[in-house]
Formats: sequence, C-alpha cells, structure tokens
Amino acid sequence: MRDAYADQLDSIRDDLLTMTRLVGNAVSHATRALLDGDAGVAEQVISEDAAIDALRVTIENRSFELLSLQNPVAGDLRMLVASLRMVSEFERMGDLAVHVAKIARLRIPDVAVPDEVVPTIARMAAVAEVMIAKVGHVIADSDVAAAEELEQVDEEMDKLRRSSFRELLGSDWKHGVEPAVDIALLGRYYERIADHAVSIARRVVFLVTGEQPTYID
Amino acid sequence: MRDAYADQLDSIRDDLLTMTRLVGNAVSHATRALLDGDAGVAEQVISEDAAIDALRVTIENRSFELLSLQNPVAGDLRMLVASLRMVSEFERMGDLAVHVAKIARLRIPDVAVPDEVVPTIARMAAVAEVMIAKVGHVIADSDVAAAEELEQVDEEMDKLRRSSFRELLGSDWKHGVEPAVDIALLGRYYERIADHAVSIARRVVFLVTGEQPTYID
Repeated sequence: MRDAYADQLDSIRDDLLTMTRLVGNAVSHATRALLDGDAGVAEQVISEDAAIDALRVTIENRSFELLSLQNPVAGDLRMLVASLRMVSEFERMGDLAVHVAKIARLRIPDVAVPDEVVPTIARMAAVAEVMIAKVGHVIADSDVAAAEELEQVDEEMDKLRRSSFRELLGSDWKHGVEPAVDIALLGRYYERIADHAVSIARRVVFLVTGEQPTYID
Repeated sequence: MRDAYADQLDSIRDDLLTMTRLVGNAVSHATRALLDGDAGVAEQVISEDAAIDALRVTIENRSFELLSLQNPVAGDLRMLVASLRMVSEFERMGDLAVHVAKIARLRIPDVAVPDEVVPTIARMAAVAEVMIAKVGHVIADSDVAAAEELEQVDEEMDKLRRSSFRELLGSDWKHGVEPAVDIALLGRYYERIADHAVSIARRVVFLVTGEQPTYID
C-alpha cells in the first residue's frame, strides 16, 4: 500500500509538470505577442507570471515540509533538493518570457523584430518551446536519454544566437540602434530559457543516476 | 565541545565566503579588462572562472554529504539547502563576469564602452562590487539588516540601467549599432549580478528568520 509520504512526493512531481506547462505557455504566448505585436497577449503573459511565482512558493513549501518532517534519504532526498533548485529555474524562465513580452509591449503598435530577422527569432522561440516540452518529458519519465538530446537541441540555439548577431552587426543592417538592441536582448532571453531547460534536465539526470554532472550551467 | 558536524557546517560557510570573494574579484577584474581594454586581465577572468566552478562542486558535494548522513533538522537543514541554492547563484555571477570579460576581449585593441558611457558602466560595476561585498557580510554575520540594505542599493542599479538605455537610444548617440548592443548586454550582465546578490541575501534572511520571503527573483 502506498503511504501519504509517497503520494506527497508524487504530487511535487505533478506540480513540477504543471510548472513546465505554464512556462511553456508563457514562452509561446510571449513570442506570439512579439511577432504579432499583440498588446493583449503581452499583457496576459505579464499578468499570468504571478501564477508561476505562486506555484514556485507552493512547491518550495511542500518540499521543505517533507525535508523537515520525513528525514528523507538517498533518492527522495535528492528529489526534494532538486525540486527546490528546479523551481528557481522555472521561475526564471517565466521571468524571461515576461522580458520578451515587455519588449513586445514597448514597441507596439510596431513590431520589435524587423521582417528579415523574424525567421531567426521565430526559430529561437520554436527551439526554446521544444526544449521545454522535452523537459516535461524528462521530468515525467525520468528519461536520461531525452535529457541528453536536450543538449544537442541547445547547440542549435547557440548557432541561432550567433546568426542573429551577424544580421544586426552586418553592413546590410538598416534599422538602426533600437531594433538591434531589442534583437540582442531577445536573443539573450531565449538563450537563457534554453540554458535553464538544459540545467533542469541535468538535475533530473543527477536524480536518476545519483551522479553529479561535472558541470551545470 | 564542538563536534565534527558543527565544524563541517562552519567549513561550508567559510567556503561560501571564499566563493563570494572569488566572484567579487572576477567582477572587479572583468570591469578593469573592459574599461582599460586589457586583454591579459580579460583572459585571467575567463580562465579563473574554473576555480569558481570547482568550488561550487566542492560545496555541493559536502552539503549533500551532510544532508544524507546527518539528517539535519530545522536551521541546519535550511542552511544546507540554502548553500546548495546559493552556490548556483554565485556560479552564475562568475559566468556573468566572464561574459563581461568576453565583450572586452572581442573589442580589444579598442575599448567596448564609448567615453561618455564610461561613468555609467563604471558606476554599475561599482554598485555590483559593493553588493557582493555586502553579501559576504550578510553570510559571515547572518546580518538581516544588511540584507535589507542590499535591496536599496539594487534600486540604484535599476536607475543606472535605465540611464544607459537613454544614452544609447538618444538622438545624440553617434557610435552606431555595435557599441549600443555591447552596452545593452553589459547593462544586463551587471543587473543580473546585482539580482543574484539580492537573491542570495534573501536566502540568508530565510535562514535566519525561518520565513520564506514572499518573492525571490
């Protein structure tokens, strides 16, 4: 028979999956706000970030409670500590989606991203969303192989970032300073979202294998 | 008589203070590399980041060991979990210093920051260094009042960031796209260093008071 403690551990994992979904939505909506110049969607991303922050506090409180009251050992201990560290990363990903939405809002009724850079930014956003979806899979199934795949997907993000710099620093750039600064910061935000996804996946690897990855970004 | 366990907890605190000092040096040297266009100092910051990463792994392993073997409760449990979360933030601060050093290196023999923006960037760096020094004080003395002061200092960082944007987006800006992008990213890096300092200080407040701050960035 399962006991209340096992149920509580499961419920933390469920909450982490909910948090993954909320963060995925935030990134997806922020990108829509950005590329469509949609003020309503931008506002929605900004206001809905409070739900991500609140879920973080819930998961933190529950994890601390179990740590304090149950004296967990081995795998359970690692799982609770990992959840405390992962929620910080998810919350940062939500904040980064808010930063994207705020750049969108700042330029409305215009669109912050000039036409010829749209494919690069759209691809960055798509890569970030794929990575978040994979993180959900890694958490749900403790899937170490999927965690390793994430690192490969992250390489595409690095390439896209470099390619966006080539565009805005190239001699063809005719949009001046403001859109260049927007693109540089947007690239940074999507890159960091991807970095956090990789970092969360590595924490799951540590959970499953008990081995500390040699480097977590 | 003090036991080995108490000594181990103290030694984790000492390592956190060493990490604070290493991160403070990294930020200070990265700024020097940036404002003097000094390639040697930039390379030093980049290569010395490995020591920060290594110390992070040391502190993580020790904290996990104590968590696993000693079943700590209450304050000790919170201290160990906080140390695991703080080392991630210190490591990020080190990475951000490396990002500053890399922008410096990219522009050498030129200096990335145009003369008229030097005071703003120099002030941002000074504020970041003050905040890191205060974090050391907060950790060494569990000083909740100093943690609150940090939040006020952080407000100056936000003002400096806005002021740097006014400069580079103003009609007087005559340096073109590349230095503008550098300044925007540098501003972001120093701002994030400051945010991590605030976040670490808040974790110490939680340690001391047992109350979860309502929001940690």
